[in-house]
Amino acid sequence: MQLTSYRTGSGEHFGAVVGDGLVDLSKRLPKYPTLRSLIAAGTLAEARAAVQGATPDHKLSDVVLLPPVVAPEKIWCIGVNYADRNEEYKDNSERPKYPSLFCRAPASMVGHEQPIERPRVSTQLDYEGEIALVIGKGGRHIPRERALEHIFGLTMCNEGSVRDWLRHGKFNVTQGKNFDKSGSLGPWIVTGDAIDLRKPIGLTTRVNGEVRQDDSTERLMFPFDYLINYLSTFATLTPGDVIVTGTPTGAGVRFDPPRWLKPGDVVEVEGSGIGTLRNIVADEA
Amino acid sequence: MQLTSYRTGSGEHFGAVVGDGLVDLSKRLPKYPTLRSLIAAGTLAEARAAVQGATPDHKLSDVVLLPPVVAPEKIWCIGVNYADRNEEYKDNSERPKYPSLFCRAPASMVGHEQPIERPRVSTQLDYEGEIALVIGKGGRHIPRERALEHIFGLTMCNEGSVRDWLRHGKFNVTQGKNFDKSGSLGPWIVTGDAIDLRKPIGLTTRVNGEVRQDDSTERLMFPFDYLINYLSTFATLTPGDVIVTGTPTGAGVRFDPPRWLKPGDVVEVEGSGIGTLRNIVADEA
Repeated sequence: MQLTSYRTGSGEHFGAVVGDGLVDLSKRLPKYPTLRSLIAAGTLAEARAAVQGATPDHKLSDVVLLPPVVAPEKIWCIGVNYADRNEEYKDNSERPKYPSLFCRAPASMVGHEQPIERPRVSTQLDYEGEIALVIGKGGRHIPRERALEHIFGLTMCNEGSVRDWLRHGKFNVTQGKNFDKSGSLGPWIVTGDAIDLRKPIGLTTRVNGEVRQDDSTERLMFPFDYLINYLSTFATLTPGDVIVTGTPTGAGVRFDPPRWLKPGDVVEVEGSGIGTLRNIVADEA
Repeated sequence: MQLTSYRTGSGEHFGAVVGDGLVDLSKRLPKYPTLRSLIAAGTLAEARAAVQGATPDHKLSDVVLLPPVVAPEKIWCIGVNYADRNEEYKDNSERPKYPSLFCRAPASMVGHEQPIERPRVSTQLDYEGEIALVIGKGGRHIPRERALEHIFGLTMCNEGSVRDWLRHGKFNVTQGKNFDKSGSLGPWIVTGDAIDLRKPIGLTTRVNGEVRQDDSTERLMFPFDYLINYLSTFATLTPGDVIVTGTPTGAGVRFDPPRWLKPGDVVEVEGSGIGTLRNIVADEA
């Protein structure tokens, strides 16, 4: 199944994507106020039964798509995970022993087809195409060999960054990763029963149709099962938590001169077997 | 007023601290399911009227105190803010131009008198006494001269850190700042009408009665109004957001040899006019 959250004139809902339509699951399963609460319930059977034979309530193009989980408890982001990325830093450092890690606030991300904002205070808005895991079953100290069982599904992320603000702090990149509406998540979660989590997933980022990033999860230094084990060593993972797994080489900052995003640019982040997350850049209002 | 959240056998509540008792405001103001929702409503008058003349429903010692705002949307933490702290890094760096910034997940903090956990995977649990701001009125691009109006109140924080895990990433300190129950917030929020936000506040941390940190907010490199302006330049602040404003010199890591926290140690973080947050260290179960 493909599940996501969306907004209509009557408020926020979640539902299943069927072709170019949406089956409203908030209406059919009122005991779950949000997709996060459905995920926490730990069963897809009810959702599957509700979708079976249903006529879509909306056309996808008629609603405002939101990040699939609207208010996750945590959004963990992994820095420097694809093999060539460490070399991009040109600091002669060894391949890292542990992942770099930072957090994003939910408001820093919009949904599919919603405008991404270039902020007033910077011209250095950049894209980072990534695959995001959504946690189903929570836990702490999750062993690596059981880790994939804790994935509810996968979605795509443009982990948009404001480059000059990444360097403000003595350490940490928090500021440049947390501008309101500077990134996106979506278009939907492909549930774990609909994708083979053990097979490589292709990841491609295009700007105005031009391929900028193109890689595969088989080159992750810290793969999905490692990340779940590692994160859960210190923090309890909870249903709906999002883990954004890192970006390949080819972000705009790596060009000479850098190629920053401008209003009107179209950014597409595609994951094989997942879908394509598409957003247009706009200036902050 | 002094407001906080707590748990009894019947669930989570919030209330006002009156002497050694608690007036249950969840019961008296049922339209506000949480303290965060009361804060978002933007008025203290209802709470004040409900407390007026009320007989406390509980003794403070009979309930489990929680972090005053149980599930803030964001917990921003400022690194290296007191004047001498930058020198502690011994990296010959200039006084920083902007604050360092990282995020903590709510589950990394417990309430007053609840055990702080030394994790299984490290012996390097350390204290950092800090003053925390709780945002009342939200906003973006909040000018510095209006910033203090956006503070709902102040509370104390032991921004507990697991030192060896702070250095795992190529950049960022996220891991070592996000161990479950490694820090604390509380004991309550002193509302902005009950403390002069423009006057220096003394901050003292004691371990087993021994003073380890002792400083005043007049030495903050980035004071409260600056932080609110700076954070809101990139992210919309929302009611209940917590800004943990940085720790003075004297954390355990700065001693030679370092003085890590051990099970049974008592950590107290006191803010003048705010109160004393007290926790005992325990090993992770």
